[in-house]
Amino acid sequence: MEKLSIIKIGGNIIEDENSLNEFLTLFSNLEGKKILVHGGGKRATNIASKLGIESKMINGRRITDLETLEVITMVYGGLVNKNVVAKLQVLQTNAIGLTGADINSIQSDKRPVKEIDFGFVGDVTKVNHIAIDKLIKADFTPVFCAITHDGNGQLLNTNADTITSQVAVGMSEIYETSIYYCFELNGVLQDFSDKESVIKNINSETYKKLLKDGIISDGMLPKLENCFDALKNGVLKVNMGNTSMLTKENDNFTTITI
Amino acid sequence: MEKLSIIKIGGNIIEDENSLNEFLTLFSNLEGKKILVHGGGKRATNIASKLGIESKMINGRRITDLETLEVITMVYGGLVNKNVVAKLQVLQTNAIGLTGADINSIQSDKRPVKEIDFGFVGDVTKVNHIAIDKLIKADFTPVFCAITHDGNGQLLNTNADTITSQVAVGMSEIYETSIYYCFELNGVLQDFSDKESVIKNINSETYKKLLKDGIISDGMLPKLENCFDALKNGVLKVNMGNTSMLTKENDNFTTITI
Repeated sequence: MEKLSIIKIGGNIIEDENSLNEFLTLFSNLEGKKILVHGGGKRATNIASKLGIESKMINGRRITDLETLEVITMVYGGLVNKNVVAKLQVLQTNAIGLTGADINSIQSDKRPVKEIDFGFVGDVTKVNHIAIDKLIKADFTPVFCAITHDGNGQLLNTNADTITSQVAVGMSEIYETSIYYCFELNGVLQDFSDKESVIKNINSETYKKLLKDGIISDGMLPKLENCFDALKNGVLKVNMGNTSMLTKENDNFTTITI
Repeated sequence: MEKLSIIKIGGNIIEDENSLNEFLTLFSNLEGKKILVHGGGKRATNIASKLGIESKMINGRRITDLETLEVITMVYGGLVNKNVVAKLQVLQTNAIGLTGADINSIQSDKRPVKEIDFGFVGDVTKVNHIAIDKLIKADFTPVFCAITHDGNGQLLNTNADTITSQVAVGMSEIYETSIYYCFELNGVLQDFSDKESVIKNINSETYKKLLKDGIISDGMLPKLENCFDALKNGVLKVNMGNTSMLTKENDNFTTITI
């Protein structure tokens, strides 16, 4: 099976022009077939605020009303995505910017209202790996923003980590797929106060022990659950660390296997 | 040669939800390979105004400073483009939204500063018909917004009529290409005060006579020059009229040939 890398970057890279440019160079230099997934960061909040749209949070989680969805569509789908694509073209990476609505690549269901109504937020239900692969086979590099659609004309704000793992699961039907989650830390840390204490390898067994020993922090828990979900569904490995893990010089990051 | 239709819609259709839905149904029902090009209309102006960005006009033409370009990228490339794509998916048209930066499809040069500095406005220099055709051959329907790039990482605001004619010229290397300019009028009018006085056929010869007789209004002149430019460069025919010209019921529109 041919290899495919799916790289996710968060708001901290998107928001800083230098970090973004550095990352995009690393991404372009990465050999083989690849897909980029990006979040949007605080830019959406800033623009919403300028437009007089209040950011509504419940229990620390954003509520996506119709106005907020419009801002997200503008910022993630337009401003961020298209500038990333234009920058990648300079680096000879033939990028194509996508939401889940484009080529019907990622469908989702609007999250059901239970205690909280999250509004126009989608939970991924179907990744069209065959359509996405048509782009890859044509030597295009898909760049996904954190927006999907419900197939009935409604765009939906969707967690970029979930998009990454779900697209990876879908693509693993065709490719030997690895995920790279780029974030602020060097990896999953043994000791949160020591940035260098990276746990280089985690598997299902050692994960149980880490959980038992209280090493996994609250913020890391959903990310790791997401990783194991992807691994159980066909993804080869998940790497977590800072962007330099995309180079051969840095081997100080976390690799998670099943 | 296989046939390809390139349809351009303007702001008047984009801005009105009912008009847009009606148009998209007609577009979806249109047989054969096709491409959609859309402008953005007043929505960008409205959002710019809400963000406190003044729309600068010189001699009735918009100046695109960096802030305005950002709004255009958000509105045309994000809000409008992605909603059109999501709506087309419902109609079983497998749309893919694009700027000229995506798959390096349309390159342009920033307009040189002469008497007026138009800012971040692009004049199309190269249409990558082979890349666009890869999407068409994969049964995807390209939906272009009015943004191109300079190949050096800069997005540029670009006239949607020009994008339409330039993409049509490029695609005519591979397809028998027809343009449909959808606008407010039923076609080119013999008598501007009579909406039904559509001139059904125009060619180079009759065009000269219309010019001489003062039938062509100032607003129509650049559009028609644009049409003849496309026809001279390989496009089969250009149709101008309201959206119902896409149906077989309406034959009251203007067809321009060389």
